[in-house]
Amino acid sequence: MRWQDVDAANCSVQATLDVVGHKWSLLIMRELFNGVRRFDDMRAHLGISEAVLSRRLRELTAEGVVETRPYRDAGSRTRNEYVPTQAGWDLFPIVVGLLEWGDRHRAGAAGRSWIVTHRDCGHEVSVAVTCPAHPGESLDQHQTATRPGPGARLRPR
Amino acid sequence: MRWQDVDAANCSVQATLDVVGHKWSLLIMRELFNGVRRFDDMRAHLGISEAVLSRRLRELTAEGVVETRPYRDAGSRTRNEYVPTQAGWDLFPIVVGLLEWGDRHRAGAAGRSWIVTHRDCGHEVSVAVTCPAHPGESLDQHQTATRPGPGARLRPR
Repeated sequence: MRWQDVDAANCSVQATLDVVGHKWSLLIMRELFNGVRRFDDMRAHLGISEAVLSRRLRELTAEGVVETRPYRDAGSRTRNEYVPTQAGWDLFPIVVGLLEWGDRHRAGAAGRSWIVTHRDCGHEVSVAVTCPAHPGESLDQHQTATRPGPGARLRPR
Repeated sequence: MRWQDVDAANCSVQATLDVVGHKWSLLIMRELFNGVRRFDDMRAHLGISEAVLSRRLRELTAEGVVETRPYRDAGSRTRNEYVPTQAGWDLFPIVVGLLEWGDRHRAGAAGRSWIVTHRDCGHEVSVAVTCPAHPGESLDQHQTATRPGPGARLRPR
């Protein structure tokens, strides 16, 4: 079965984009990964409307990638802040991958605005396609192959 | 300088999403990565309109992640097929990352529809945040730190 003959409705790339493919969703995850957790802080930093941020946070929460935690500043009512769930943190390599691509291909002469490092040694991290049997190798497309999985269905004609 | 104080307009995650953040763009890259290169084949497999596919391919070509190559079937006029440029192939880890996330969190009982393996050994690949000084380690968020890069600008207030 070739990829072209597989029903793409069933594809996990599509399934992930259904969760985080809306405009702003991955930028909201970027904010959360950088410790920006409060609604007003995210709104100000992203420069989006309250309505859009609110809708996106509701969707991300419903999808199980974000959860709310109550907090209370002195003299204010209790509010929620937002943190990634484990499923949300599992998006971290995707966001670092987007960062790395933009650094490489779009940062230009001004240079990159934000750098992610290995905490222990300070080296910059990167995102790689890896094989469990070949630790330390970063694979490019020519070193990979594809095959249908158990959920592959033939595409309706 | 905290992330919150950095001007996010300058962020490489945003810059990458400006290229591939539109609906369908990363799914078109998925098709190209899987060897689906012809307009009609992509249109049929993605199930989108000619107008939308055409517009997205024009954008991806203008952004330098896709290029055209002429081909000619016997008895037909010359047409273009579409292939990733090197900058396009550099998006491969992001698309594999989306696949892996969906496999883990959304594939469900039916199982995954498509599997990417290491060509040499047949093991399934995965996407990892890696450090050049610690080959073979896959880092999670707790093992990373962030700092402003040379292009960091203070956010206007």
